[in-house]
Amino acid sequence: MVKIIMHGCNGHMGQVISGLVAQDPDAEIVAGIDVADQGKNSYPVYTNMKECQVEADALIDFSSAKATDALLDYCAERKLPVVLCTTGLSEEQLAKVEETAKKVAVLKSANMSLGINTLMKLIQDAAKVLATAGFDMEIVEKHHRLKLDAPSGTALALADSLNEAMDNQYHYIYDRSQRRQMRDDKEIGISAVRGGTIVGEHEVIFAGPDEVIEFKHTAYSKAVFGKGAVEAAKFLAGKPAGRYEMSDVISAK
Amino acid sequence: MVKIIMHGCNGHMGQVISGLVAQDPDAEIVAGIDVADQGKNSYPVYTNMKECQVEADALIDFSSAKATDALLDYCAERKLPVVLCTTGLSEEQLAKVEETAKKVAVLKSANMSLGINTLMKLIQDAAKVLATAGFDMEIVEKHHRLKLDAPSGTALALADSLNEAMDNQYHYIYDRSQRRQMRDDKEIGISAVRGGTIVGEHEVIFAGPDEVIEFKHTAYSKAVFGKGAVEAAKFLAGKPAGRYEMSDVISAK
Amino acid sequence: MVKIIMHGCNGHMGQVISGLVAQDPDAEIVAGIDVADQGKNSYPVYTNMKECQVEADALIDFSSAKATDALLDYCAERKLPVVLCTTGLSEEQLAKVEETAKKVAVLKSANMSLGINTLMKLIQDAAKVLATAGFDMEIVEKHHRLKLDAPSGTALALADSLNEAMDNQYHYIYDRSQRRQMRDDKEIGISAVRGGTIVGEHEVIFAGPDEVIEFKHTAYSKAVFGKGAVEAAKFLAGKPAGRYEMSDVISAK
Amino acid sequence: MVKIIMHGCNGHMGQVISGLVAQDPDAEIVAGIDVADQGKNSYPVYTNMKECQVEADALIDFSSAKATDALLDYCAERKLPVVLCTTGLSEEQLAKVEETAKKVAVLKSANMSLGINTLMKLIQDAAKVLATAGFDMEIVEKHHRLKLDAPSGTALALADSLNEAMDNQYHYIYDRSQRRQMRDDKEIGISAVRGGTIVGEHEVIFAGPDEVIEFKHTAYSKAVFGKGAVEAAKFLAGKPAGRYEMSDVISAK
Repeated sequence: MVKIIMHGCNGHMGQVISGLVAQDPDAEIVAGIDVADQGKNSYPVYTNMKECQVEADALIDFSSAKATDALLDYCAERKLPVVLCTTGLSEEQLAKVEETAKKVAVLKSANMSLGINTLMKLIQDAAKVLATAGFDMEIVEKHHRLKLDAPSGTALALADSLNEAMDNQYHYIYDRSQRRQMRDDKEIGISAVRGGTIVGEHEVIFAGPDEVIEFKHTAYSKAVFGKGAVEAAKFLAGKPAGRYEMSDVISAK
Repeated sequence: MVKIIMHGCNGHMGQVISGLVAQDPDAEIVAGIDVADQGKNSYPVYTNMKECQVEADALIDFSSAKATDALLDYCAERKLPVVLCTTGLSEEQLAKVEETAKKVAVLKSANMSLGINTLMKLIQDAAKVLATAGFDMEIVEKHHRLKLDAPSGTALALADSLNEAMDNQYHYIYDRSQRRQMRDDKEIGISAVRGGTIVGEHEVIFAGPDEVIEFKHTAYSKAVFGKGAVEAAKFLAGKPAGRYEMSDVISAK
Repeated sequence: MVKIIMHGCNGHMGQVISGLVAQDPDAEIVAGIDVADQGKNSYPVYTNMKECQVEADALIDFSSAKATDALLDYCAERKLPVVLCTTGLSEEQLAKVEETAKKVAVLKSANMSLGINTLMKLIQDAAKVLATAGFDMEIVEKHHRLKLDAPSGTALALADSLNEAMDNQYHYIYDRSQRRQMRDDKEIGISAVRGGTIVGEHEVIFAGPDEVIEFKHTAYSKAVFGKGAVEAAKFLAGKPAGRYEMSDVISAK
Repeated sequence: MVKIIMHGCNGHMGQVISGLVAQDPDAEIVAGIDVADQGKNSYPVYTNMKECQVEADALIDFSSAKATDALLDYCAERKLPVVLCTTGLSEEQLAKVEETAKKVAVLKSANMSLGINTLMKLIQDAAKVLATAGFDMEIVEKHHRLKLDAPSGTALALADSLNEAMDNQYHYIYDRSQRRQMRDDKEIGISAVRGGTIVGEHEVIFAGPDEVIEFKHTAYSKAVFGKGAVEAAKFLAGKPAGRYEMSDVISAK
C-alpha cells in the first residue's frame, strides 16, 4: 500500500485524485495539504505544510507555481519522492527542481496521461523518418474556454519533442495572419483552439507530398491526468534521488 | 453549348478548367486570355484582352487582382457575364465589382466548390441554434506549404457567414499566444495550418458544454474549384445584370 | 418550478439527471421510481409505480423497454407528460407510444443532446443538395466497449433523417467484407467502432468527386443527454396531448 | 540511372509511375509489359512478357494476380529484382513469392507510401504500451466508391501489424450489427467506408479509459504509391536475392 500526501488536495485535480485513490487497493492518501481546509476529505488536511509530518512514500503536487519553492524544500528535507504536476514554473524554479532531484526522487511532467506520454516518444520516431524526408510538422491543440495560457504546456512539450528529435533546428510560430509568405522549412506551426468544455485534444500533423499523417490524443476527463499521477507516485515510492519522467513509469510497466 | 472565354487560361486553374471543359458536352472554351501564349491550348489565346472579340456566353476569371479593373471594364462593355474567382481584391475593386454588376451579370465567390458553398449556408443555421445556446465558434483551416495568405479567403468567408448569422456581433482572433486570458464570448478564433501539398481543409467547430459539433470540408484536388466555376458560367449565360452567388447556382439545380 | 418524476432513478442516467436537477433552480425531482430503493436519493423512491401518486408536471423515463408498457399506461391515466428516452422499443411498443400520445403529451427521442438534434435537421438540408448532386452518404459512430447494440440508436436515427430527406430511397449496409462489389448509389454504410469509455461520437460523411464534407458530433459526458431530458421535461409541462420532438424543444428556445 | 521495366504499364498506376519516372533524373523506364499496347508510351511495350529481354535493374509490378505466377518465373529466370505491388494473391502465390525470393530480390508491400509504412512500425510500438495497458484497438478505412474489396489490403496489413506486436492473440471483426454483446478484449474491429473519390484514408484507434489516441493517414493522390514503388525499385537494383520490405527502403534513406 503506497502512502501518498496530496499537495493541493482541495483543488480540482486534488479532488479527482482523491476520488481515484479511494478506489485503488494499492494506494492511500494519508494526508492533504492546502491553503484552507473545508473539512470535505476523509484524510487530515494541513494548511501549514511544515506541520504535516505524516509518514508517507510519495507526494503528489497539483497546485500553483507560487507554492513550488517551499514544496521542493519540504520534500528534499523529508526525503519524500515528489510527483510535480504544477506547470508554469520559472527558469529559477526549474533550476531548483534539478537541485532538488540530487537529494530526492523527482518526477515532473507537463501531462500525466499515458496516451500523451506514449505519443511524445512515437512522434520523435516519426519525425526522424518523415521530417527528414521533407514533411512539414504542425500542432493543433483544443481546450476549454476558461484556459488562460495558449498554446498549452502539452502542445509546447510535443513541439519540443519533435524539435529535439531533429537536433533543435526548428522554431515555433503561433500566428501567420501578420505576414504574407510561404512557410519556412524549419518551422513548427502551433495553433490553439478554445471553446466549450473541451478537456484537451492535441494533434500532431506531418504533411508531405500528397500524404498526411496525424497523431491525435483526446482526453475525455481530467481523470486521465490524475490516474497518471497516481501511477507515478506508486512508481516513485522507494526510488533513489534523481530526475524521473513519465516515460520511466510507462516502460516499467 | 455554353461558350466560355477563359481569362488566365495559362495559369494552374486555367489549365484545370480547360481540361474539365474539354470533357463537358455542354460547354466549350472559345478563347483564352493571358499575358503570354505558349501555344499549348486548343483554342485561340489573346495576350491583349481588347483584341479578343470572339462571341461568347460567359467569361471565367482565375487570374490576378492586378488584371481585375481592366477585366471588369471589358465585360461591362461587351455585356459578357463574368465568373470572378480571383481573390485579394482591394476595397476600390470590390466597389467596382458592384458597379459592374449594374451593367452585366457578375458572380463572385471566394470558393467555387459545391461543398463549401453548401456549408456556408448550413453553418449559419447551426450558429443560430448553437451560438445562441452559448456554444463557442472556431475555425481551423489547412493548406499547402506554398500558400502565402493566412487565414485563407474561404476561412474568412466562413467566419463572415457565422458572424452575419449572429448580427455581426463577433470579432476574429488569429493568435492567442500573446495574451493570457480566457476567450471572449463573442470571439471567433481562426487558425491556419500550413504543410505539404494539402489542397484545402476547413473545419468549423461549435464547442458547448460537454459536446462539440464539427463541420469539415476537404478538397482533394483543385478540380472541385474548376468544376464549380464551369457550373457558374453555365448558370450565368443569358442572365440579366446583377450580383450572383454560388448559392444561386446551387439552388437552381 | 417544474416538478419531475424520475423513472429509472437509480440507473446511471437517472443519477446523472438527479445531479443536474439538484443544481437547476427551475426544476425539482419530486419522486423516483425504480425496481429497488437503495435509499441514496434525496427524494422518495417508489418500487411500485402505481403507488407513486405524487403531484408532478412531467415524468422522465430512462429505464428499460421491459417497463415501457406499464409506464405508458401510468402516464396516460395520470395525464402526466412523459419524456421517453428508453431505446430499443418493439414495433408494438412504438404503436402504443402513438396511442398514448392521443391522451397525453409524449416526447420520444433516440438522443437528447442539443447538438445531435441540431445535426438531425442540418444533414437533411445537406442531403437534399449533396446527395442529389451524387455525393455518397456514410455514417461512422464510436462508443464505449460496454455498449451492446450496434449501430447505435442515434446512428440509425441519423440515417433515417438522411433517408427521409431523400424520399426513403436508400437502404443501410453494416458489413462490406462479405461481398466484392462496388457500393450502390442508394446505400448508406453505417459503421460501429467500440472501445474504451468513448461516450459517443457520430460522423455523417458526404463523399463526392474530389471533395468530402463531414458532420461530426462528440459527446464528452452523459450530462449532455441528461440536460436535454430536463429541458424537454420543462418544455412538456402543461402541453396538450400529442407527439413532440426534441426539435420542438430547440425551436421554442 | 536505374533502368526499370514497368509491368502493367497501361493500367492506372502504371501510367502514374510512368509520369513520375519521366521527371526523375535517377530513373528511367526502359520497357513496359501489358496485355495490349495502345502506343501511348515513350518506351517500347511488350504484350508477350517473354519477348521483353531489354536490359534492366528492376521491375515494378502493378497488375493483376492472374499474371503474378508468370511474372515471378520471368524475374527469377532473368535475375531481375522485382517490386511486387499487386494485391489479392492466393496462399499458393504467396508461397511462390517466398520461393522466388531465394533466387532474386523481391519486395512485396500492400501499400507503397512512406507514410503508411512509417505508421506500420509506430503502431506496433503503440500497441505494446497501450494494448498492454488495456486500450482497445480499432481500424477505420475510407476509400472511393469503386473499390471492390473491403476492408482494404492496407487496413488488413495494419491489423496484422497490431496483432503481430501482441503475439497474434487478436481476431478481427467486420460487423457488429448481427450480435448484441459487448466487444471482446482481444478483438480488432475493422470498418470500411466507401464514397466519392476518396483516394485512401486509414485510421488506427487506441481507446482507453477516458483517453483516445488516433493515428491517421490520408493519401491525396495515387502518386504517393507510385513514388514509393519507384524508390523501392532504386533500392532493389543490385541487391542480392531475398525478401525485402518497404521498411528496408525507408531505413536505408
